[in-house]
Amino acid sequence: MKLWQKENTVTSEKIEKFTVGRDREMDLNLAEYDVLGNLAHAKMLASIGLLTSEDLTALEQELKLIYSQVQQGEFLIEEGVEDVHSQVELQLTRKLGDTGKKIHSGRSRNDQVLVDMKLYTRARLFDVVKATEKLFDVLARRSEEHKNDLLPGYTHLQIAMPSSFGLWFGAYAEGLIDDVIQLNAAYRLANRNPLGSGAGYGSSFPLNRTLTTTLLGFEGMHHNVVYAQMSRGRTEQAALTAISSLAATVSRLAMDVCLYNSQNFSFIVLPDDLTTGSSIMPHKKNPDVAELLRAKTNRMKALPMEVTMVLSNLPSGYHRDMQLLKEILMPAFDEILDCLDIAAFMLENMKVKQNLLEDAKYDLLFSVERVNELVINGVPFRDAYRQVGAEIGDGSYVAPRELKHTHEGSIGNLQTAEIQERMRHEVAAFGYDKVTAALEKLLQNG
Amino acid sequence: MKLWQKENTVTSEKIEKFTVGRDREMDLNLAEYDVLGNLAHAKMLASIGLLTSEDLTALEQELKLIYSQVQQGEFLIEEGVEDVHSQVELQLTRKLGDTGKKIHSGRSRNDQVLVDMKLYTRARLFDVVKATEKLFDVLARRSEEHKNDLLPGYTHLQIAMPSSFGLWFGAYAEGLIDDVIQLNAAYRLANRNPLGSGAGYGSSFPLNRTLTTTLLGFEGMHHNVVYAQMSRGRTEQAALTAISSLAATVSRLAMDVCLYNSQNFSFIVLPDDLTTGSSIMPHKKNPDVAELLRAKTNRMKALPMEVTMVLSNLPSGYHRDMQLLKEILMPAFDEILDCLDIAAFMLENMKVKQNLLEDAKYDLLFSVERVNELVINGVPFRDAYRQVGAEIGDGSYVAPRELKHTHEGSIGNLQTAEIQERMRHEVAAFGYDKVTAALEKLLQNG
Amino acid sequence: MKLWQKENTVTSEKIEKFTVGRDREMDLNLAEYDVLGNLAHAKMLASIGLLTSEDLTALEQELKLIYSQVQQGEFLIEEGVEDVHSQVELQLTRKLGDTGKKIHSGRSRNDQVLVDMKLYTRARLFDVVKATEKLFDVLARRSEEHKNDLLPGYTHLQIAMPSSFGLWFGAYAEGLIDDVIQLNAAYRLANRNPLGSGAGYGSSFPLNRTLTTTLLGFEGMHHNVVYAQMSRGRTEQAALTAISSLAATVSRLAMDVCLYNSQNFSFIVLPDDLTTGSSIMPHKKNPDVAELLRAKTNRMKALPMEVTMVLSNLPSGYHRDMQLLKEILMPAFDEILDCLDIAAFMLENMKVKQNLLEDAKYDLLFSVERVNELVINGVPFRDAYRQVGAEIGDGSYVAPRELKHTHEGSIGNLQTAEIQERMRHEVAAFGYDKVTAALEKLLQNG
Amino acid sequence: MKLWQKENTVTSEKIEKFTVGRDREMDLNLAEYDVLGNLAHAKMLASIGLLTSEDLTALEQELKLIYSQVQQGEFLIEEGVEDVHSQVELQLTRKLGDTGKKIHSGRSRNDQVLVDMKLYTRARLFDVVKATEKLFDVLARRSEEHKNDLLPGYTHLQIAMPSSFGLWFGAYAEGLIDDVIQLNAAYRLANRNPLGSGAGYGSSFPLNRTLTTTLLGFEGMHHNVVYAQMSRGRTEQAALTAISSLAATVSRLAMDVCLYNSQNFSFIVLPDDLTTGSSIMPHKKNPDVAELLRAKTNRMKALPMEVTMVLSNLPSGYHRDMQLLKEILMPAFDEILDCLDIAAFMLENMKVKQNLLEDAKYDLLFSVERVNELVINGVPFRDAYRQVGAEIGDGSYVAPRELKHTHEGSIGNLQTAEIQERMRHEVAAFGYDKVTAALEKLLQNG
Repeated sequence: MKLWQKENTVTSEKIEKFTVGRDREMDLNLAEYDVLGNLAHAKMLASIGLLTSEDLTALEQELKLIYSQVQQGEFLIEEGVEDVHSQVELQLTRKLGDTGKKIHSGRSRNDQVLVDMKLYTRARLFDVVKATEKLFDVLARRSEEHKNDLLPGYTHLQIAMPSSFGLWFGAYAEGLIDDVIQLNAAYRLANRNPLGSGAGYGSSFPLNRTLTTTLLGFEGMHHNVVYAQMSRGRTEQAALTAISSLAATVSRLAMDVCLYNSQNFSFIVLPDDLTTGSSIMPHKKNPDVAELLRAKTNRMKALPMEVTMVLSNLPSGYHRDMQLLKEILMPAFDEILDCLDIAAFMLENMKVKQNLLEDAKYDLLFSVERVNELVINGVPFRDAYRQVGAEIGDGSYVAPRELKHTHEGSIGNLQTAEIQERMRHEVAAFGYDKVTAALEKLLQNG
Repeated sequence: MKLWQKENTVTSEKIEKFTVGRDREMDLNLAEYDVLGNLAHAKMLASIGLLTSEDLTALEQELKLIYSQVQQGEFLIEEGVEDVHSQVELQLTRKLGDTGKKIHSGRSRNDQVLVDMKLYTRARLFDVVKATEKLFDVLARRSEEHKNDLLPGYTHLQIAMPSSFGLWFGAYAEGLIDDVIQLNAAYRLANRNPLGSGAGYGSSFPLNRTLTTTLLGFEGMHHNVVYAQMSRGRTEQAALTAISSLAATVSRLAMDVCLYNSQNFSFIVLPDDLTTGSSIMPHKKNPDVAELLRAKTNRMKALPMEVTMVLSNLPSGYHRDMQLLKEILMPAFDEILDCLDIAAFMLENMKVKQNLLEDAKYDLLFSVERVNELVINGVPFRDAYRQVGAEIGDGSYVAPRELKHTHEGSIGNLQTAEIQERMRHEVAAFGYDKVTAALEKLLQNG
Repeated sequence: MKLWQKENTVTSEKIEKFTVGRDREMDLNLAEYDVLGNLAHAKMLASIGLLTSEDLTALEQELKLIYSQVQQGEFLIEEGVEDVHSQVELQLTRKLGDTGKKIHSGRSRNDQVLVDMKLYTRARLFDVVKATEKLFDVLARRSEEHKNDLLPGYTHLQIAMPSSFGLWFGAYAEGLIDDVIQLNAAYRLANRNPLGSGAGYGSSFPLNRTLTTTLLGFEGMHHNVVYAQMSRGRTEQAALTAISSLAATVSRLAMDVCLYNSQNFSFIVLPDDLTTGSSIMPHKKNPDVAELLRAKTNRMKALPMEVTMVLSNLPSGYHRDMQLLKEILMPAFDEILDCLDIAAFMLENMKVKQNLLEDAKYDLLFSVERVNELVINGVPFRDAYRQVGAEIGDGSYVAPRELKHTHEGSIGNLQTAEIQERMRHEVAAFGYDKVTAALEKLLQNG
Repeated sequence: MKLWQKENTVTSEKIEKFTVGRDREMDLNLAEYDVLGNLAHAKMLASIGLLTSEDLTALEQELKLIYSQVQQGEFLIEEGVEDVHSQVELQLTRKLGDTGKKIHSGRSRNDQVLVDMKLYTRARLFDVVKATEKLFDVLARRSEEHKNDLLPGYTHLQIAMPSSFGLWFGAYAEGLIDDVIQLNAAYRLANRNPLGSGAGYGSSFPLNRTLTTTLLGFEGMHHNVVYAQMSRGRTEQAALTAISSLAATVSRLAMDVCLYNSQNFSFIVLPDDLTTGSSIMPHKKNPDVAELLRAKTNRMKALPMEVTMVLSNLPSGYHRDMQLLKEILMPAFDEILDCLDIAAFMLENMKVKQNLLEDAKYDLLFSVERVNELVINGVPFRDAYRQVGAEIGDGSYVAPRELKHTHEGSIGNLQTAEIQERMRHEVAAFGYDKVTAALEKLLQNG
C-alpha cells in the first residue's frame, strides 16, 4: 500500500509537471488581462441581476487591488494553484467569500482564457506595431541622409544598375508598411470578444455579450459561440503569421548587412559593439549581431508551422492541446521586439561607405543609362540594346556616370514623405486609442 | 566537332527544359494581364513623349486584338518563344515593326512580370473571395434551416454540453469572415503598382508611374523601386498564406464531416455521390470526397513554406529563383477554388440526423443546465457545481432537457443576420468594382 | 563623454544579452563532452610533440578534476565567461599557467564546439533509443496480454473489419523499430570526428586526426575539413528529423487514445491520474495527458523546419547563425524523453474494454469473413463480394463471429517474438558499447 | 426529373474529377510494380491451394504479357477505369474470365497499393542513389584536379583562412555520403513487405506472407498487419525526408556557385550554356541554371511538410487522404533526378579561376599560419595570437604564403581515396543486386 502511494506521489508529480509545463510562467503574462476580463464580466453579471450592486462594488474594489499588484510586479501564482484564473478567483474568495465564488457564473475557464488571450494578443500586437514604426523611422531617416550615396544594384547577384543607400534603406522602410498591414489583419482577429461563449456552447444565463464587448473596447464580438471557441488557435496563428512576415523582412535586411560587410563587397562598416573577433584569427571583425539577427528572425518563420502542427485535424471543440499555444506565442512577442530593437540600433550605428561606384569594376552598371541615351535620341529600344552590347564587346563603351533618375520612387526622387504618410495612415487604422480609452474607463469608474 | 555539336544540342535541350520548366504553361495565365500592362505602359510612354500618338493608336489597336485572342482562348505562346512577354512583343513587332520595339522603353522584363503577377494575383484573390462568399451562403442557410436540430457539443472529444447544427454550420460561416479579412491583407499587397521599377533600380526615363497606377486601377504604387522588386515573392507569400488559412478552415470542417459520418457518431448522412464502396467490404460507404477535401486543404497549408524555402536568405535584388514561384502560386488558386466548390456542394447535399440528443448516452450533456438552474435559484456557482457532481454520482441527476439559451450567438439566438452583414461589409471593403471600372476603361477608350 | 559611456554600457548589455542569449545555459549540457574533447586533443598534441609529457600529465589531471565537478553538478560557467570552452580553458590556465594556454594549439573554437556537439548528440540520441525501447517493451507486453480482446477495425473512420488490442498495441510497437532505424541514420552522422578541422579549413600543425577519432570512440572521421564544418547544422537537422519521426508515431498513438476514450467509442478507460475535470461541467473526465502528449509531439514535428529556416541559403563556411541551433536541439531531447516516459506510463496504466464487438452495431465488421467463407467454398471473389452485398441489403446476412486469422502478423498470429527480435537487432546495431568503452578508457588511463 | 439527372451528370463529373485527380496519371508509374505484386500474390495463392496450377500458369502468362506492354510503353489505363489495379484486373478478366477474378482473393486494394508503392519507392530511391553517386564522382574528380588551386576560406562571410577548390569540391562530395546514409534509412522502410495485410486487418485466408516476401526480394515483412497499413505515409515521408536532405546539399552548393560567380567574388566561370542575358542590361551573364537549381532544391525542402500536413492527427486505419501522397512523392523523384543531373553537368563544365590568393586583399587569410609559425617555435598559442594581432595593427605583418597543411582531410591531404571508398561501401550496403535477382527470377520462371 505504501509503495503504491509513494509510486503514486512520484507519478502525480511527473504528471503534474507534464501537464502544467510552463503554463504558470506563461500565465503571469495574462494576469493584467484576467483582471480586466473579470471586471467586465462582473459588471455584466450585475447588469442582468446575477450580482447585487454590493457584490459588484466589492468585487471591483478587490479586482482593482489585484490590478495594481500586477502593475507593481507583486502578483504571484501561488504554489499549488493551477493557473492565473484560479489565483485571481482564490484571492477574491479569500477576501469576499461567497461573493468571490459568484463571479464564475455564466462563464467557463475556456472563455476566460479566450478573452485573456484576445486582450493580451491585441496589446502585444500593437507593441510590435510601435516597435516596427520605430525601426521604420530609423530606415526613413537614413534613407534621406544617404540619398546621394550610390551603391551597386544587383540582379542574379551580378552587378546590374546603379542603386543608392537612399533606395536600399528606403526599400526596407516601405516593406515594413506591408508588415503593418499583415499585423492589422491579425489584430482584427484578436480584437473580437469571445466572452460569453462558455465552454464553446454558450450559456443558459441571459448574458449580455454586447455589454462586455463595449466595456473591453473590442471592435465587435465573435457572435457564434462555437466559432468563438474555434478562434482559439486561429488568433495565435494569425498573430504568429504576421510576426513571421515581419521577421522575414528583418532577416533579409540582416542578410544584406552580412553580405555588404564582407570584404568582397565592403559597402558598410559596423561599429565595434556589433562585431567580434575570432579565437584563432587575429584579423577578424565578425558581424555576429547581424548574423544572430538573421538566424533569430529566420527561425521565427517556422512559428506558424508549430501552431499548424498542433491544430491540424483536431475536430471542432476545445482540446487541451490548445494550452500549448501559449508557449509558442508568448515568447515570440519578446523575441520579435528584441530583434526589432537590435535592428534599429544596428542600422542607426552602421557606417556607409562613399564613392563606391568609382571603382572601375562597376563601370558596366551604367550600360542601361547608355542604352537609354540612345533611345531618347530616337533609336528603337531593341536596337539601342544591341548597339551598347557591341560597344561593350569592342571596348568603345564609356560609362555615362551622371544619373538623371527623376520618376516616382527612383534614386533622384525617393518619395520618403509619401512613404512616411502611408505608415502613419496604416498605424492610425488600428484605432488603438479607442482600446486604451475603454480599458481606462473600465479601471477607473469600474 | 560534330560530336560536340550533337552533345551541345542535347545539352541545350536539357538546359532549356530545366530552365523553362512549366513556365510557358504558367505564363498563359498572365496573357490577359500582360496586355493590360502593355496598354497602360504605352499610354504612359505617349504621355511623356516617348511614343507618338500614331504609335500609340497602332499599339492599342494591336493590343486589344491580342486581348480578344486571349479571351477567346486563341492566344498561344509559339514554339521557341520564351515567355508571354516575348510572345506579345513578337506579335506587336510582326505587325508594327519598329513601333512594336519601342514599347519596351522604360521598362524591364522584371517589372513587366511584376505588374502581370500583381494584376493576376489581385484578380484571382477576388475570385477566391467570391467563392468563399458562396460557401458562406450555403453555411448560413443551413445554419438557419437546422437551428432547432440539436447535436452533442464536445470538449476534449468528451460529450460536454448541448450544441446544434445551427451553431455548427454557423460557426464555419463566421470563420470564413476572418479568412476574408486575411485575403484582404494579401489583396492590398497585390493591389500596388510596381510598373516603372525596371530591373529593380528604376529608369532614367521621366516615367509617370502615377499615371499607370490610375490606369490599372491600383490602390497606389510601390514607391521605392527597390521595394517594388522586393515585393516579388512577398506578394505570392501573402496570397498563399491567406489561401492556406482558408484551407485550414475547410480542412477542419472536412474533419468534422468525416468524424460525424462514422458509425460511432452517425450525426449526418452523405449523399451516394459523395461516398464510395470498398473492394473487399461489401457494406462500406466511405466519405472519400470529404477525406480528399481534408487532404487537399491540409496539403495547401504547406504552400507558404514552399515560398519561404525559395526566398530564405536571398540577398536583395532579383534572382531567377523567383520564377519558380509561379508554379507554386498559380495551381494553388485552381485548387482552392475547386475545394471551395466541392465543400459547398457537400454541405448543400448533406443530410442531418434529427433528435440525436434523445439517446440516453447524451444525458450528461445537460449537467451545466442543472448547475445553472441552481445558480439562478441563488446557490453560489462553485457550490452548485459540487451538488450536481454529487447528484451524478448517486444517480439522482435528471437531465433538464429544455434549453433556454438566449444570449447573442447561442443556440437560441444565432445572429445569422449580423454575421451575414459582417461578411457583406468585408467583401465590399475590397472595392473591386473600382478595379473593374478602371480596366474596362483602359480596354475601351484605350 | 560620460553620457556616451553610459549609453555604451546600456548598449553593451543589450548586445551582450542578444548575442549570448541562452547560450551559457545550453553550454552546461556540453561541459562533460568538452572535457572529453580536451582530453583527446591533449593526448594527440603530446603525440606530435606539441605538448611535453609533463604538460599532458598536468592537463589530464586537471581535466579529470573538472570532469568530476561536472558529474557532481558543481561545474559552473562564471559570470563574464562567454561559454563552456572558455570556462574550461580558464580553469586550466588558472591552475597551470602557460601549459593551460597551449591546449588551444591546432584547434579553433569552431571544431571544439563541433566535437562537443557530436559527442553530446551521439549520447543523447542513444538515450532516446533506450527510452524508445522501453516504450516498445510496454507496447509489446500489452499486445500479448490483449491478443484476444477484439476491437473494431476502421478504414475511412468507418467500421471495417475485426481488429484486436493485440494488433493495435503491436502495431505501434513495430512502428518504433522504424523510428530506431531513422535514429540510427542520425546517430551515424553524429558519430564522426570533426576535431582537427579548425575553423573549417584545417591547420598547418601536423595533427593526427586518426588518433582523436579512436580516442573518442567515433566510427570514423569527417575527412574533408570543409565538410567537417558543414556538418554543423546537418547533424542537428538529422537528429531532429529522427526525433520528429518518433514524435509523429507517438502523436498518432495519442490521437487514437483520445478518440478511443470518447464516449462515442469508449474502447479504453484512462486512470484518474491521467484525466481532469471541468470548471463548469461536473461530469467530465478529460484525457488531458493524452491531449498534451499529442500536442507536444505534434509540435515537435516542426523542429526540423526551424533548423532549415536558419540554414537555408547560407553560403559554405561558419556563420554565427549556427549558435542558435543549440537552443533548438537541446530542449528537444528533454521533451521527447519526457513524452516517451509519459506515453509508457499511460499505456501501462490504461484499461482495455472487453467484448466490444458483441454490440450489434459492429455486425458488419464480419462481412469480409462471410465473403471469404464463400470463396473458400469455391465462389470467385468478385461474385462472393456481390452475394454478401445482397445479403446485407435484404437482411439475410448473419455475422460469422468466429475468427480464423492465422497468417503472419494477423489477429491470431501476432509474431511478437519476431518483432522483439528485430528491435533488439536494431538497437544492437548502434554499437554503443564501443563508445562507452572508448570514453571510459580515455577517462581512466587518460 | 430530367433537370436533376443533368445536374447529376455534371455533378458526377465534377466529383469524379475531384476524387480521381491526377491519380490515373500517377498510377502509370505503378504499372510495372502492380504486375510484380500480382505475380507474387498469384504464386502464393497457388501455394496455399486457392489457385489451381492451371490458374496460376494462365495468370502468369497474362501478367508477363502486361509487363512487356508496360516495358514497351504500351500499357494504358482505359477511360472509365479507376486505377492501375482495376486495369490490370480488367485485362486478366477479359482474357481469363473467372480465373482473372480469383486473383483478388486474400487481398484488398489497400495492400495492393501498399505493395506497389513499396516496390516503386524502393526502385526510385535506388535510382536517386545512383544519380547521387554520379554527382559524387564528378565532385571527387574535380576535387583532385584542383587540389592546388587555392580559394579564400570564409567564416561569417569574412575572409578567414586559405582554402582550395580541392577542399570545396571534396566537401560536397563527402556530404553526399551522408545523404546516401539517409536514403538508406528510407530505403529500408520501403524494403518491407506489406502484402497480406488486406485492408489493414489481415485476412482469414491462410496466406503465406513469408513466401511473397522472398519472391519480391524484400528484406523482411511488416509483420503486424495494422502496422503494415500504418506504414503508408511513413514510407513516403521517409523517402521525401531523405530527398529533401539531399536537396539541401545541392541547394547549398548552388548558393556557393551563385555567389562565387558574382563579380565581387569572381572565383569561377560558368559556360555560356548555363548563363543568360538581360532584356535591358547588355552586359549581363546571369547564372540562371544555378539559381533555378537552388530554387528547385530549396523548394523540395518543404516536401516532408506536405506529407506531415496530410497525415497529422489522422487516427489509425486507412483514409482516402493517403491517395494524395502519390502526387507529392512521385514528381519529387523526377525533380531530384533532374536536379542531380543538372548539378553534375554544371560542375563538370564550370571553370575555376587560378591564383586567386595573390590579390593583396587576401593577405590576412594567412594570419593563422603566422600564429602557428610562432607556436611551433615555442610561443604559447594565446600569446602568439596577440603578437600577430599587434603585427597586423602596426603594419609589420607579412603573409607567409607557403602552406604546409598535411593532416587528414586538409588542403595538402584531401583523402579522396578514403572518401571514395566510403561512398562505395554505403552504396553497396543497399544490397540492391539481391532485389534485382529476385525480381528477375519472379519474371522468368514466374
